[in-house]
Amino acid sequence: MPVVIETIASALLAGNPLGDPPERRVPIYLPPDYETSTARYPVVYFLAGFSGGGVYLLGESLWGETLPQRVDRLVRGGDVRPLIVVMPDCITRFGGSQYINSAATGPYADHLVQELVPYVDAHFRTLTDREHRVVMGKSSGGYGATVLAMRHPELFGLAVDHSGDKYFELCYRADIPAAVSALARYDHSAARFLADFPHPPAKRGRHWFALVNLLAMASCYSPDPAAPCGFALPFDEHTAELRPDVWTRWLAHDPVELVAAHAAALRSLRLYFLDCGRWDEHHLQFGARIYTGRLRDLGIAHTYEEFDGGHLQVAHRYDVSLRALSAALA
Amino acid sequence: MPVVIETIASALLAGNPLGDPPERRVPIYLPPDYETSTARYPVVYFLAGFSGGGVYLLGESLWGETLPQRVDRLVRGGDVRPLIVVMPDCITRFGGSQYINSAATGPYADHLVQELVPYVDAHFRTLTDREHRVVMGKSSGGYGATVLAMRHPELFGLAVDHSGDKYFELCYRADIPAAVSALARYDHSAARFLADFPHPPAKRGRHWFALVNLLAMASCYSPDPAAPCGFALPFDEHTAELRPDVWTRWLAHDPVELVAAHAAALRSLRLYFLDCGRWDEHHLQFGARIYTGRLRDLGIAHTYEEFDGGHLQVAHRYDVSLRALSAALA
Amino acid sequence: MPVVIETIASALLAGNPLGDPPERRVPIYLPPDYETSTARYPVVYFLAGFSGGGVYLLGESLWGETLPQRVDRLVRGGDVRPLIVVMPDCITRFGGSQYINSAATGPYADHLVQELVPYVDAHFRTLTDREHRVVMGKSSGGYGATVLAMRHPELFGLAVDHSGDKYFELCYRADIPAAVSALARYDHSAARFLADFPHPPAKRGRHWFALVNLLAMASCYSPDPAAPCGFALPFDEHTAELRPDVWTRWLAHDPVELVAAHAAALRSLRLYFLDCGRWDEHHLQFGARIYTGRLRDLGIAHTYEEFDGGHLQVAHRYDVSLRALSAALA
Amino acid sequence: MPVVIETIASALLAGNPLGDPPERRVPIYLPPDYETSTARYPVVYFLAGFSGGGVYLLGESLWGETLPQRVDRLVRGGDVRPLIVVMPDCITRFGGSQYINSAATGPYADHLVQELVPYVDAHFRTLTDREHRVVMGKSSGGYGATVLAMRHPELFGLAVDHSGDKYFELCYRADIPAAVSALARYDHSAARFLADFPHPPAKRGRHWFALVNLLAMASCYSPDPAAPCGFALPFDEHTAELRPDVWTRWLAHDPVELVAAHAAALRSLRLYFLDCGRWDEHHLQFGARIYTGRLRDLGIAHTYEEFDGGHLQVAHRYDVSLRALSAALA
Repeated sequence: MPVVIETIASALLAGNPLGDPPERRVPIYLPPDYETSTARYPVVYFLAGFSGGGVYLLGESLWGETLPQRVDRLVRGGDVRPLIVVMPDCITRFGGSQYINSAATGPYADHLVQELVPYVDAHFRTLTDREHRVVMGKSSGGYGATVLAMRHPELFGLAVDHSGDKYFELCYRADIPAAVSALARYDHSAARFLADFPHPPAKRGRHWFALVNLLAMASCYSPDPAAPCGFALPFDEHTAELRPDVWTRWLAHDPVELVAAHAAALRSLRLYFLDCGRWDEHHLQFGARIYTGRLRDLGIAHTYEEFDGGHLQVAHRYDVSLRALSAALA
Repeated sequence: MPVVIETIASALLAGNPLGDPPERRVPIYLPPDYETSTARYPVVYFLAGFSGGGVYLLGESLWGETLPQRVDRLVRGGDVRPLIVVMPDCITRFGGSQYINSAATGPYADHLVQELVPYVDAHFRTLTDREHRVVMGKSSGGYGATVLAMRHPELFGLAVDHSGDKYFELCYRADIPAAVSALARYDHSAARFLADFPHPPAKRGRHWFALVNLLAMASCYSPDPAAPCGFALPFDEHTAELRPDVWTRWLAHDPVELVAAHAAALRSLRLYFLDCGRWDEHHLQFGARIYTGRLRDLGIAHTYEEFDGGHLQVAHRYDVSLRALSAALA
Repeated sequence: MPVVIETIASALLAGNPLGDPPERRVPIYLPPDYETSTARYPVVYFLAGFSGGGVYLLGESLWGETLPQRVDRLVRGGDVRPLIVVMPDCITRFGGSQYINSAATGPYADHLVQELVPYVDAHFRTLTDREHRVVMGKSSGGYGATVLAMRHPELFGLAVDHSGDKYFELCYRADIPAAVSALARYDHSAARFLADFPHPPAKRGRHWFALVNLLAMASCYSPDPAAPCGFALPFDEHTAELRPDVWTRWLAHDPVELVAAHAAALRSLRLYFLDCGRWDEHHLQFGARIYTGRLRDLGIAHTYEEFDGGHLQVAHRYDVSLRALSAALA
Repeated sequence: MPVVIETIASALLAGNPLGDPPERRVPIYLPPDYETSTARYPVVYFLAGFSGGGVYLLGESLWGETLPQRVDRLVRGGDVRPLIVVMPDCITRFGGSQYINSAATGPYADHLVQELVPYVDAHFRTLTDREHRVVMGKSSGGYGATVLAMRHPELFGLAVDHSGDKYFELCYRADIPAAVSALARYDHSAARFLADFPHPPAKRGRHWFALVNLLAMASCYSPDPAAPCGFALPFDEHTAELRPDVWTRWLAHDPVELVAAHAAALRSLRLYFLDCGRWDEHHLQFGARIYTGRLRDLGIAHTYEEFDGGHLQVAHRYDVSLRALSAALA
């Protein structure tokens, strides 16, 4: 199964504020007949979820499939037409960039749009029109797929959003108490917590992940050069009280808030596929219901499926969306 | 141990909208020497938490103490001076009135203030000045103690608030997703759920309690005669989206919002004791931190203790507050 | 609703090794027409589960029914014929006697059979033949019902066993690791743990209940006058290693082991009703399957129902068994 | 960081009963100076836990280290002397071979001892005496390390056992109820469950892992050519009743039972390091306490550490054992 790993030196990410490497390792899946044919192929940009992406999509496991193994099975079985899958690396030391630009992390959306897409089109036999370029992702990657489809209709003609972050009033806000509880062992100081980060701690406390996730989101949604960490938190580190001024900045990035202003771009999609598990541990099914309600009200065509499952172990859903993509690309 | 159960026919609660009985069974603990002395005693109005109060405080268990057993032990042991404890019955079929008036449930605060207190003072040898009348409670009863102390300084000179409801932005709002999930099996209709209520269901689903709690709070905080259930919900029953207009009505009852307007009443208290478990399952420690921060800013004297525990099995904390009350009453 | 509480001074329990009171408070439910008729009634001895029984069955709650309230509803509604329900008090300071005799706790089976039954027949208008005397219980009380039916066919002609303890290899043995973990904070010494018991601890650790339950079972199944606590434990307090000699003594009390020797007694029952929740947290559904398999092999008539539920909140199942009893008694 | 992946065609595993591939992919970590020196190095055979091993140890993650990354950091930092680490692939389609021979899976111990060790010594510059060959592992790999050290003192002079399977009476037996519950959706038939296996199911039920783990252990400990799956289960698939004859076969593989017969081999070790988390989710701390008690009684030198943690996220413990190994190898 042909997977090449390209190392792309990003000029845009050079000198980024978190000190993350500007060299990005981007795995690219090529279809079985790529070497023996001269055809051009549609391209899927697959955006991974928080703390994942790039080479982290390649770790094999006994009873699972890596993303390339999954796609290859579907292509070889004739379920999905041959296509190229690019696995961007927009990871930061805090876990992720949400595939957007931020003064606290770096211009990750620009990197993807201005550097990665041209690189791929230059080095691989892609179909280079928007009608054959897909942005697709899961969780934070689903969020990325939706906001990139909103902002770059000139690039992406199809979008797939699996269990994407939406309705921040629930999906992030519900984690604030856990994050503040996790801060208790750091004198309720995020700066103190981050002083050791990302050294893998000997023992991650119960709410470690909720804390890291909210800090990472703050680095994406509320950068603040004056703050000790480079970003503002939308809650008090001791009392958990919401800081409305910062929270307003977060909400400005919520797809539920963004959708009206980008209706035209979304209407132009050949396929907009969304789904979510009915028991999503991050309450994303509610965001999906609210958001697709907005889509309906705005007359934006889309497919939405709610399935019996949660937020994890849902890779089997990619079989569904990849088949739908294949049909739409035909 | 002398406990009498008075049945009080409330004129104010007659014909209440939920059809709850206007006859209220109110247990009253009398100190060991009550029968043999002619003394008058301080009175504690103990407000129980959600779904409790009145005779429900009297159920014995093998390794626990009922409230009267606890007080009696402390009084007999000389830890607490002899006092009378009244256990008001402000329960509704949905679980509780929050000890406030509501067009959807009934005038429960008025009942307590205008009917129960005079009744007790008329029928028992109480000290009838505010300096010897205490309002005390746990959870929803802690909430009741705080708002009654705010609104009735002429009656209550001391207040104890254990793990009381505060900062609704966390303590209630965090339950909305669970409540909506519980509604899934009722076609996302609270009216349909309530059609069978309170018949004890054969099997209570996982989020049954969160749902009942939020419906009960809606009956207290956002009555709406035009609504099918008599109250408005602050969230969409299918998408969980917040309804800001209803939510604003809830916030108007939040102690964090109320405190500034009632600072004078709270400043007049001889004792204002609050506590909360550091790991409260309903996030009430955060509300307590925010609220006591407000108290500090407003110059309102109080005692606040945060202890190693959660929201349940905290009756041992009453030993602490009763001792503090006893000292303040001396 | 007529419930009388008899206080019975037990000669057999006087001076019992745990120092538990020989005076036993036994609530007795009388049917609605008891006072106005001269009829005699069938009697149900209802044996409560661990840490319950006697007056602990009388604690009211908002959305539930006490046992007498439940029976009274069924009798008044015509679903169940009028009968008397006796709620024996065979509780010990450790939580329960399993309704058997033990040198470490006292002769609780003898008390029930030789003292309580004659007392009830002498003081109330009962039908005194075995054909109208029922032994019924839940959990540890289900265990009690089964072993009393095995050993006293002269007294009990019908038996109901809800979620009773069976197949000790699972139901108790699975708790050993938790109990040993709970002992960690007591230097792995049950004697040290019991030194403070039953003082209600300020904070019960996570596995407190599993530990108390196993200690109580040891007091019932493996009394040992030479041991510091009066009983032997079937496991090492530090390593959790099974002690086969003590464990063998426990197994001798397992209904799965007992059944063959008592087949004749069980065959003589007019009704033997058993049930268990399919998701019982103590694995009792497996014991029920094994045990009813033995009943089948031995040709012992019985009814076994497995329902969708766990070990708690299953009182609605009493409606089913009481109806079946009523039909069998007719 | 030099990691080579050798593909080794095993003659012994050819035609194995589960149809697993006889070609084994074995990653081998080489120390930083391997290419530039002519030195020979000690070798560590690192045995991974259930469902892991071989290339599955190479999956990168954002905040973690792969095993080679960890070793390389320690070697480059001077904490551990340069050494070679071999990552055997003894995985089966059920998740693992426990590094033993079984008629139901294949001769995995023989493969490791007779094929892999000679291959490594032939192809890499190893120190080939037992004084410089280590067997080390975690969980099922810890089990493998202990039993290989018992049976092959001629090969291994040092052994490290992290959280290894021991005292089957707890570590496996406690999972039986969960496994039988998982079988409920397959008509209580392991054969039916295995018919689809290992196809990754759309939705893994709650006890899926416990079931797979016990089936895999049965394939290792109780092969049975006459049984439909090729092995016997030690419990009834519907009632969970233990089958003593099969269980006895399992116990014959328990280190607690094996240790006395292999005391001489274990006494010959230069280092025998064991540890376990105090809160191991599989109760392995109890097995470790029992087993090291046996070691003590038999006069077998060893180091045992119990740390504050569970069964997962304990890779930081390898830093401790690798340092101890390095010191012992010096």
